[in-house]
Amino acid sequence: MSKTSSAAEEQTADHAYGWAARDSSGILSPFRFPRRANGDDDITIKILYCGICHTDLHFLKDDAGMADYPVVPGHEIVGEVTKVGSNVTKFQIGDKAGVGCLVGSCGSCNNCKQDLESYCPSMIWTYHGKYHDGLKNFGGYSDKLVVEEHFAVLVPDNMPLDGAAPLLCAGITVYSPLMYFGLSRAGQHLGVVGLGGLGHVAVKFAKALGMKVTVISTSPSKQKEAVEQLGVDEFLVSHDQGQLQAAMGTMDGILDTVSAPHSLVPLIELLKTNGKLILVGAPLKPPELPHIPLMMGRKMVGGSAAGGMKETQEMIDFAAKHNITADVEVIPIDYVNAAVERLAKGDVKYRFVIDVANTLNPHPPQL
Amino acid sequence: MSKTSSAAEEQTADHAYGWAARDSSGILSPFRFPRRANGDDDITIKILYCGICHTDLHFLKDDAGMADYPVVPGHEIVGEVTKVGSNVTKFQIGDKAGVGCLVGSCGSCNNCKQDLESYCPSMIWTYHGKYHDGLKNFGGYSDKLVVEEHFAVLVPDNMPLDGAAPLLCAGITVYSPLMYFGLSRAGQHLGVVGLGGLGHVAVKFAKALGMKVTVISTSPSKQKEAVEQLGVDEFLVSHDQGQLQAAMGTMDGILDTVSAPHSLVPLIELLKTNGKLILVGAPLKPPELPHIPLMMGRKMVGGSAAGGMKETQEMIDFAAKHNITADVEVIPIDYVNAAVERLAKGDVKYRFVIDVANTLNPHPPQL
Repeated sequence: MSKTSSAAEEQTADHAYGWAARDSSGILSPFRFPRRANGDDDITIKILYCGICHTDLHFLKDDAGMADYPVVPGHEIVGEVTKVGSNVTKFQIGDKAGVGCLVGSCGSCNNCKQDLESYCPSMIWTYHGKYHDGLKNFGGYSDKLVVEEHFAVLVPDNMPLDGAAPLLCAGITVYSPLMYFGLSRAGQHLGVVGLGGLGHVAVKFAKALGMKVTVISTSPSKQKEAVEQLGVDEFLVSHDQGQLQAAMGTMDGILDTVSAPHSLVPLIELLKTNGKLILVGAPLKPPELPHIPLMMGRKMVGGSAAGGMKETQEMIDFAAKHNITADVEVIPIDYVNAAVERLAKGDVKYRFVIDVANTLNPHPPQL
Repeated sequence: MSKTSSAAEEQTADHAYGWAARDSSGILSPFRFPRRANGDDDITIKILYCGICHTDLHFLKDDAGMADYPVVPGHEIVGEVTKVGSNVTKFQIGDKAGVGCLVGSCGSCNNCKQDLESYCPSMIWTYHGKYHDGLKNFGGYSDKLVVEEHFAVLVPDNMPLDGAAPLLCAGITVYSPLMYFGLSRAGQHLGVVGLGGLGHVAVKFAKALGMKVTVISTSPSKQKEAVEQLGVDEFLVSHDQGQLQAAMGTMDGILDTVSAPHSLVPLIELLKTNGKLILVGAPLKPPELPHIPLMMGRKMVGGSAAGGMKETQEMIDFAAKHNITADVEVIPIDYVNAAVERLAKGDVKYRFVIDVANTLNPHPPQL
């Protein structure tokens, strides 16, 4: 009897359900798919919340020609641990766990050895590509996830979980370059280009670090809230030449979160000598590099992509300590297609988060 | 009598002669021009050698639309001190002195206070623009120079002066970014793009620092000499896809000295995670920035322009200690137009240096 029961459990463990896009229309609809059984190094997470990242839009509509349909997006995942493998030491059943952009890496390359798993050449994306076992990966717009404990972080008990979810991608994507490129000292002046999902979290981290923060945005309408709610010190409208001129040469660093095409020239000019422009948004077309202003000010342009697991845990702990979460609009899963359309227009303050546990039908019809 | 003699000396001190381009033909010919009298903070240098930098070509033919004819080029100057002002402490008459790209700065901005005079917004180029007194600057293709002692470095007695001259621009231009961007540790792997005046000096500094050096060049013909004479560890022909492929992800940094237009894509690919591409050559047109590879490897592209005076002295002292000079072809001033043509074609190993003292006619006809 116990053997039969165990086999039945195994079978249950192998299936999950969520919402998938089936083609480049990008329209999401309910979908059943396999998840691997919980292995010795794995935890199973009952997904509670999942953020909608701008990257999800690229994969839904296959903007970059990389989507492998059906696509279940979602890499800003927070949930409750429901199962732990025999080798698991970091989690207990009932703990809150978070999973971001990656669910695997080789574990043996130089990057992995230095806790830089997000730069491992064999890095496995949470919903792009395949896991070591050859099984296709599906993301967090779904009921549960099986993941190596190494690729999950412990979410402190005091964090609101809806606002914590976006930190797993947006949070680490902005936190990591601030740390690595030395833009984390109190008193430094940081520019943040774009006040969306990434930008508003960057503002919160930078303010918690004691920095002066200037938002650079195309939208004058965002100024009031940026200053009053987020505590931004200054707000530059990027097409206002007078404002740009007045701020030239004043910033130690700029974090550019915008994925729409834009010129880097005014950004380089805003930097002090030795200033650093860090790109974390990814326009589809490469920008021109203003190399002469770069040289004449010993400036640099750097890029950064998410962060390693050790640093992701540090980021979550830092956020918990400073009461930092994303500002979110929590939505039911049935609203996801409308949310995607609104996100494409920038119509959200500042991140959509799907209330998975309460709105994903646990007994969907056979699909 | 002594008063008259002094007045005569003053008058002599106000005039100099050299070779100038008078229009965008770029053709150089003999030319008389004023130099200021030696002030309290100044030294006067009898110019012995002056290198021909690639930048000189841009000003001779006005490629960038910035030339103010007549132009006397030359910012790789070595000579003998013949006069010292009353406040001068660093030099004595008879000392060997070097002057590079700059002869003045504001002295009070943040950059000047941090010994970064070459990034001062009011920086005064050796032969471009005007000095504080409003007098137009003329460069080192001439018999003498009056300069604030702060903007001259002491050239150690053991250095061959012809090979030392190019260090004042080419030398500091490659030395400074290696130091600033942390590409100076023994065992690091440095790529050097372009084996010309800058590139071959970069190789010598990097080898003296104990680095592994790979030259990346369009010219397979340079390989033998690079390896046998300069001690280069590897030589990549930049249009050989197989060689590039094999070297991908192997370099800690790349110093790009090339001022002809070229793609940055293969260079970014040659870098390891966290690798740094530093631009010190200045193509007229901005290159495309391969932002996605930059982000996926947390790489950066930086720029650098010459260096401050303190570091220029350090560079010269380091070079003297390690017997580093530029490999030069010494020419008489009468050959300068031919040399300029050859340099434009890259036909020199690796720097032309004008033997000013022995070939510039000290008693030219009235011009």
